[in-house]
Amino acid sequence: MKVYGVVMAGGSGTRFWPLSRQHRPKQLLNLTGKDAMINEAVTRLKPVCKDGIFIVSSKSQRECLLEVLDKEFPKDHILLEPAARNTAACIGYAAIEIVKRCGDGVLAVIPSDSYIKNTEAFLSALTLAVKTAEEKDAIVTVGIKPTFPATGYGYIRYEDVPSPVKPVRQFVEKPDLARAEEYLKSGEFVWNSGMFIWKASLILQKLEKYLPELYQELLRIGEAVGTEREEDVISSVYPEMPSISVDYGVLEKTDGIYVVPADLGWSDVGSLDMLGAVRRADENDNVTVGETYPVDTHHTIIYTGGKPVCTVGVDDLIIVDTPDVLLVCSKERAQDVKKIVEELRAKGKEELL
Amino acid sequence: MKVYGVVMAGGSGTRFWPLSRQHRPKQLLNLTGKDAMINEAVTRLKPVCKDGIFIVSSKSQRECLLEVLDKEFPKDHILLEPAARNTAACIGYAAIEIVKRCGDGVLAVIPSDSYIKNTEAFLSALTLAVKTAEEKDAIVTVGIKPTFPATGYGYIRYEDVPSPVKPVRQFVEKPDLARAEEYLKSGEFVWNSGMFIWKASLILQKLEKYLPELYQELLRIGEAVGTEREEDVISSVYPEMPSISVDYGVLEKTDGIYVVPADLGWSDVGSLDMLGAVRRADENDNVTVGETYPVDTHHTIIYTGGKPVCTVGVDDLIIVDTPDVLLVCSKERAQDVKKIVEELRAKGKEELL
Repeated sequence: MKVYGVVMAGGSGTRFWPLSRQHRPKQLLNLTGKDAMINEAVTRLKPVCKDGIFIVSSKSQRECLLEVLDKEFPKDHILLEPAARNTAACIGYAAIEIVKRCGDGVLAVIPSDSYIKNTEAFLSALTLAVKTAEEKDAIVTVGIKPTFPATGYGYIRYEDVPSPVKPVRQFVEKPDLARAEEYLKSGEFVWNSGMFIWKASLILQKLEKYLPELYQELLRIGEAVGTEREEDVISSVYPEMPSISVDYGVLEKTDGIYVVPADLGWSDVGSLDMLGAVRRADENDNVTVGETYPVDTHHTIIYTGGKPVCTVGVDDLIIVDTPDVLLVCSKERAQDVKKIVEELRAKGKEELL
Repeated sequence: MKVYGVVMAGGSGTRFWPLSRQHRPKQLLNLTGKDAMINEAVTRLKPVCKDGIFIVSSKSQRECLLEVLDKEFPKDHILLEPAARNTAACIGYAAIEIVKRCGDGVLAVIPSDSYIKNTEAFLSALTLAVKTAEEKDAIVTVGIKPTFPATGYGYIRYEDVPSPVKPVRQFVEKPDLARAEEYLKSGEFVWNSGMFIWKASLILQKLEKYLPELYQELLRIGEAVGTEREEDVISSVYPEMPSISVDYGVLEKTDGIYVVPADLGWSDVGSLDMLGAVRRADENDNVTVGETYPVDTHHTIIYTGGKPVCTVGVDDLIIVDTPDVLLVCSKERAQDVKKIVEELRAKGKEELL
């Protein structure tokens, strides 16, 4: 059976501001110093998704996406959403496009903005997940073996059968610290990575069952695929689709899901403090990008887009200097960068967002 | 008798970097938001020093000085040192120039880079000091009534006679905290402001007695004043002069000095954390200059030369953003900004100094 990659790249979070902006979301940034996250995601899928890789992004990011994306990436494999409608719509859109254009196949659907350090482990897990998805006609996810009691991730509880592929017992929301510690200790939980591997036909079948309204809209798109009407239909249909996550809309309601627990050196790079997860720290646990002069500085992240940044006697800070705005944030308050974004929006400083 | 002001403006400290630079020292900065310190110093002297004000600065700062200085300031009242030779040489140079050009008079010699909030109190103290210097032919200083046990200033101990003009008993070096607390408690000490009021003839007489070598060089300058040779003579003589402070070279060795204790709202603005002394703080004790967005930020100084600075969850920081370099410094480490300057110099980054 054919195997396709689907990279979900429509997100536009504010937690990575001011590195990310409205039209340059996190997945278009080069956080590792090697390549933009989106290109790394595509490259990572290639050995397994031999029949093609699709990107689902948003119309508003088109220009910036084309600028960042590897020039060899086929333009007709870029699917642009005219409006953000969460992951159920995104995955359904990719599934209907691929089914209509290429016929059925296994889709490895992955977020574009996660970091994976251990590529070999990822490819092993993905290969196993694809095999399982095809043979069992099941939904398969790659789960991240937890390394600390994270409270910022969803968890998946599995049945610990003697096989590298485990039946999923339950999807669990972000826990509090006490619960997260229990989960870590039990050895029966993995982090939900947001990577799902299933046949396009199964995706559509599940959407028909659990999100029939959304499915009807997808059928309208399906009829237009490859015709001159396609863009118009998508533009008119998409904003009408229900906005719901595939986790909440489908996965939590259905049985027969499998998970492949894996040790990927994974991070969702969900906020600026996690730059520490994708870059090597110096002997004082500072992670610096650009020209920096840290004196008596510890556990600090410094990212400068151009000019030198000097620090004296500071600890646990995040400093991000960009050409048009500077952010200085306590590391433990990285999640609250969105407060600044809200304040700037309220004050009409759209040009900085 | 005539009364002249002498503003000493040759300093080039590094503790105010990156606001101050090699060719733009602190006294040329507008720290208060009203005017450059040098212009404020000149304006402050005017009501008392009715016969003219002179500025002693350095040749290397000439261009920047002329740019900043009030356009009405007479160019021939700018005395430029070809080399920095500390305050004894600086004051001697001003004295010989004034004596030769205008005859004897009382000179009010003041640093250009101190901040004085209470102008009225300053003018009262200065008037009294000038009167005393003339009548007693004495060295008179204005002393700052201490408001906290400062360890960063020199002190002057005086005899607490029932008069606003007190005989000086002793000049005291910067004390440790225990001693500073004693001084504050005793009520017999004031901070040494570096302001000295004495006749030009007395200055030269004291230099002849205590620093005869320096005095001989001054005589050579004196012979050239007003001639075509003047600049050449100064260029050749100045670098040969002993480099010594007037405090150490003269004041600590002589008797008959008087001090006028005064409550001036004074600060030497000796390091970046003292920006808090010259600017009004907001309700969270933040002092901000430029476009800033402080969220959950306290006791922090933010100075931006252009772009917006956003902060989240930080306390007790100094953030100075200039077009070519950014400094983020713990407030209590403000004195160590010079470490950065040294490091940049060692790394050949002269353009940033």
